[in-house]
Amino acid sequence: MEAVILSIGNEITTGQTVDTNSAWLSRQVSELGIRIPRHVTVADDLEAIREEIEQAARKTDLVLVTGGLGPTEDDLSRQALAAAMGVDLEVREEHVERIRAFFTARGRQMPESNRTQALFPAGSEAIDNTCGTAPGIKAVCGRATVFVMPGVPREMQEMYRLAVRPFLVRKTGGTRMQAVTLHTFGAGESDIGDLIRDLMDRKHNPTVGTTAKQGVISVRIHSYGRNQDESRLLLEETAAEVRKRLGTLVFGQDEDTLAHAVGRLLIAKRKTLATAESCTGGLIAKLITDVPGSSDYFRQGLVTYANEAKTRLLGVPAGLIQKYGAVSHEVAEALVTEIRLRGEVDYAISVTGVAGPGGGNAQKPVGLVYIGLADATGCEVTRHLFGEHLTRAEIRERTAWTALNRLRLSLGA
Amino acid sequence: MEAVILSIGNEITTGQTVDTNSAWLSRQVSELGIRIPRHVTVADDLEAIREEIEQAARKTDLVLVTGGLGPTEDDLSRQALAAAMGVDLEVREEHVERIRAFFTARGRQMPESNRTQALFPAGSEAIDNTCGTAPGIKAVCGRATVFVMPGVPREMQEMYRLAVRPFLVRKTGGTRMQAVTLHTFGAGESDIGDLIRDLMDRKHNPTVGTTAKQGVISVRIHSYGRNQDESRLLLEETAAEVRKRLGTLVFGQDEDTLAHAVGRLLIAKRKTLATAESCTGGLIAKLITDVPGSSDYFRQGLVTYANEAKTRLLGVPAGLIQKYGAVSHEVAEALVTEIRLRGEVDYAISVTGVAGPGGGNAQKPVGLVYIGLADATGCEVTRHLFGEHLTRAEIRERTAWTALNRLRLSLGA
Repeated sequence: MEAVILSIGNEITTGQTVDTNSAWLSRQVSELGIRIPRHVTVADDLEAIREEIEQAARKTDLVLVTGGLGPTEDDLSRQALAAAMGVDLEVREEHVERIRAFFTARGRQMPESNRTQALFPAGSEAIDNTCGTAPGIKAVCGRATVFVMPGVPREMQEMYRLAVRPFLVRKTGGTRMQAVTLHTFGAGESDIGDLIRDLMDRKHNPTVGTTAKQGVISVRIHSYGRNQDESRLLLEETAAEVRKRLGTLVFGQDEDTLAHAVGRLLIAKRKTLATAESCTGGLIAKLITDVPGSSDYFRQGLVTYANEAKTRLLGVPAGLIQKYGAVSHEVAEALVTEIRLRGEVDYAISVTGVAGPGGGNAQKPVGLVYIGLADATGCEVTRHLFGEHLTRAEIRERTAWTALNRLRLSLGA
Repeated sequence: MEAVILSIGNEITTGQTVDTNSAWLSRQVSELGIRIPRHVTVADDLEAIREEIEQAARKTDLVLVTGGLGPTEDDLSRQALAAAMGVDLEVREEHVERIRAFFTARGRQMPESNRTQALFPAGSEAIDNTCGTAPGIKAVCGRATVFVMPGVPREMQEMYRLAVRPFLVRKTGGTRMQAVTLHTFGAGESDIGDLIRDLMDRKHNPTVGTTAKQGVISVRIHSYGRNQDESRLLLEETAAEVRKRLGTLVFGQDEDTLAHAVGRLLIAKRKTLATAESCTGGLIAKLITDVPGSSDYFRQGLVTYANEAKTRLLGVPAGLIQKYGAVSHEVAEALVTEIRLRGEVDYAISVTGVAGPGGGNAQKPVGLVYIGLADATGCEVTRHLFGEHLTRAEIRERTAWTALNRLRLSLGA
């Protein structure tokens, strides 16, 4: 079974709103084993919407439309669907009353314009909207079943769950696709590709692909079986093979970040952690504490942004900072040694660098970062050049992930 | 002039990734007065990509493609464009060398697979990628000029600015639309709506709309004139009216965050700042130091996550924490008073709360937060209930913005 996802609205085609509905619906529908060859977004234009519905309904079994059901003149999905079906619109009085009741329950009078929301193409079914005024529409057009849902994400999602999903589960027999995303850190996308080339070359089931974001290379695996068990088995085989080949490059899956991976290892080993950050300015502590339950291992973080703060909070000698500069191997070492001792923790991370855009020079360019890592056996400082072509935000994020990855590996991941 | 925006990738059609590139490009292109009738996303399928490029190139003047330029087998945009143009791909050795140089500069060897990124349809132009390996492509196909750009947002945006925009400015004569977004904090979306209803009801130029995100209500204004000066004049009139009505609710515009607003005020008044965070775990320091130049006023931040850290770093008596609890008016007050004194700064912020999802109870539910603010005249602690329906990340972000907004107002914004 194939589906086309169609979203309607000038606010999307002009870029004022990012279309998150299509991604949400795609995830839902993919899980049922329905393939999605394309998403289309069209402006609030009757002819254009009609044409897209018609074209999609010729080629696919299912068309999911979001948006264009509001009460204003630029809401044209009802008219376009009727035109594509070659039928007229008809008012259904019971829906006028439902919409009126929605307003009455909120102590307001229904504006006349909302009557248009009770218009339906002849022969179509109305779908109740449990959290807004606009009812949805289910209709047959060409070879396809077409569902039209509101553009407001919460209303759309609720309508999908209550009315669309049950229909699709009946049609498909329920979830057949399984998916997992394995996240790696420490190698480039082409290096990862080289290690799993033959799996990525497979045209068929399960499929394997990679995406890259801020140094994290993610491997996505999708499997389709005749039933859920078969899908899961196929998925697990391929996931195990990818994990075997990538070894400790893999730090987690799906919603995991490096902070989750680090957290799990610290809990398993009953170890504690503290941080001393300069150029990342609290980002590493923020990422660590994004994880619920991080209070079990994270004790404290210092953002020693000014040089005096490095001296006052961690006793880094002013002379050392003057001699080597705040961005130096020596200062990173002093910071990490002191935060570990004073924080009375097992592991400590320190960071000092030039995040830019200003503050760089030939000796210490933007993107130069020193990362210190200390444990009971001593401390080690690494030097990184994150490249002047990265933005301040990117340099900070790369730095944070690199530091957390070093900690992960030293925890024996 | 009309443009179709085409994004490529299974990660988008399966909903793993939300397509933000199309929205970004649409905003850029709309500003030049170019109409965008549709966005299309297609899966990594050679035939499907070719068909979409061909179809778009028949109907419109401009096709902007993002994605499918990576070095792996599922990157098919080059091949699809060549097929749509009816030409072969050719290797351009100078681009192999550029890609090799990109790796060499990073101390790595170019994987063989990256050679495919130097393939171009015969007769097309290469576009340099200043921040990644994949060059872009400019070609003529049907009646359209086609640009293919990388899917990585940063690389795509940079390529658009350097190579695509100048071409479009020559074609269109430059910007006719002007837009500004004013950001507010401290009132709800319907309250803001009530203050500027008549401006929002205008069907015409300039148009005014609101969006809400994590307590920040943003007012978007668009104007279209016969030329850039007329557009700007129209925009400035309406923006001035909105600013007048909303007063100190407005904290900035466009890329500004509350951290920028606070930074500008601290610089203007030559004041310094320190933070002591518990439940936000470094987020406030991170947001402050997101701003380039924040080292001029931000001295230090403490993440006193564990109770012992509150005592050790800021001398908060263990007895006080035991008596009132870490999440209390008293502890917020002690934290903010001590961080201001010990940090030797003019202003200080403290935060302690229950970010959840665990750790709440009837007396101290998830979402309860105390925010302390101290200056030379003393300190004030406010109590907030951010609601148990918010996620951990949302509670932390609301808390951070609320704290920064209190500081902004106390700096006399």
